[in-house]
Amino acid sequence: MTTLYGYFRSSAAYRVRIALNLKSLDYQQAPVNLVKGEQRTEANLARNPQGLVPSLVTDDGLVLNQSLAICEYLDETHPEPPLLPADAEGRARVRALAQVVACEIHPLNNLKVLKYLVRELKVDDDAKLAWYRHWIAQGFDALETMLSREAGSGEFCHGDTPTLADICLVPQVFNAERFECDLSAYPRIRRITANCRAQLAFQQAAPEAQPDAG
Amino acid sequence: MTTLYGYFRSSAAYRVRIALNLKSLDYQQAPVNLVKGEQRTEANLARNPQGLVPSLVTDDGLVLNQSLAICEYLDETHPEPPLLPADAEGRARVRALAQVVACEIHPLNNLKVLKYLVRELKVDDDAKLAWYRHWIAQGFDALETMLSREAGSGEFCHGDTPTLADICLVPQVFNAERFECDLSAYPRIRRITANCRAQLAFQQAAPEAQPDAG
Repeated sequence: MTTLYGYFRSSAAYRVRIALNLKSLDYQQAPVNLVKGEQRTEANLARNPQGLVPSLVTDDGLVLNQSLAICEYLDETHPEPPLLPADAEGRARVRALAQVVACEIHPLNNLKVLKYLVRELKVDDDAKLAWYRHWIAQGFDALETMLSREAGSGEFCHGDTPTLADICLVPQVFNAERFECDLSAYPRIRRITANCRAQLAFQQAAPEAQPDAG
Repeated sequence: MTTLYGYFRSSAAYRVRIALNLKSLDYQQAPVNLVKGEQRTEANLARNPQGLVPSLVTDDGLVLNQSLAICEYLDETHPEPPLLPADAEGRARVRALAQVVACEIHPLNNLKVLKYLVRELKVDDDAKLAWYRHWIAQGFDALETMLSREAGSGEFCHGDTPTLADICLVPQVFNAERFECDLSAYPRIRRITANCRAQLAFQQAAPEAQPDAG
């Protein structure tokens, strides 16, 4: 069976769980506890040389890494329902929205970076929290503008069905809430997130619904 | 004419230049000087709400943001030569290699982050350089492993023609060299980079070959 190596609170693993659920694919989960450092075990490094999660291992042993690449793979191999629009312009828009999260916000706030701030740069808790919130605010400011003024937006980031953009947005909002970021300036982001959270695929992918949730 | 809003030393703009050149597409460049803060002008924010480069504006006025989304758009609208393999497994591998750079290394080392380190966290020059080199080393360690042990590698990151992975790798190597990172532990990365640099599409995309190179 397809196996997802992840961690309940990893937002990259969360993305893949949403994609798997939207596609109604069967999979089992193999937790890699990031707090205990299990991402750096030999077994995990063999799957994922970066020492990260998620990795998706398919029925026939194919090992896939990097959450957006995994989601696109799932979309190509299981086209229904599509995670990207049919037109090139729409696809570019959805990928850009996804990448605002995946290339601009999340990389600055993940565990390895926060650890570096504390251990190497001796940053205190307040400054670490300010860092976290700064990158979320900067990214969400841009996202809110894009979602508000671009014609492609609908009940979801693009149109009225979930896409790769929503798959990235919802885990990022989860992180923002966890670190008590003020989201009052982002009504569009909040509305879209609420629409996503009304769907079973998103509910069942949520961190608190995972077997390793502690 | 298609217009690329970029900056000679922006590695995200550099990626798009390589893609445009590989596709033999005509385009003009409109420099946005990041050192002078031109990314935050009203005109640039209208194109790019994140206040970043690159943006690509097509003949018919379509505005595209986020370098990987732009490259995929170019690949979908101008399929030859392809920037991604034909098979889903190969595509997943190339995207994962690209994302190691675009989601793990580059986001931590771009200008806005380095500025935050200095201005907000009062990090000195040595610690800033150590930060820069740390994320390159961590990412390149993983990339070298992936490129060395995975069967898909060839004269380029995947097979014997350039793909999206090489489009991301070469600008990252440029940055690494600029900050005098030790690349001796990465023979595979260096060989692939040399193969890329032997191609006109890469040469003509290089920072020093741009009209705004200072």
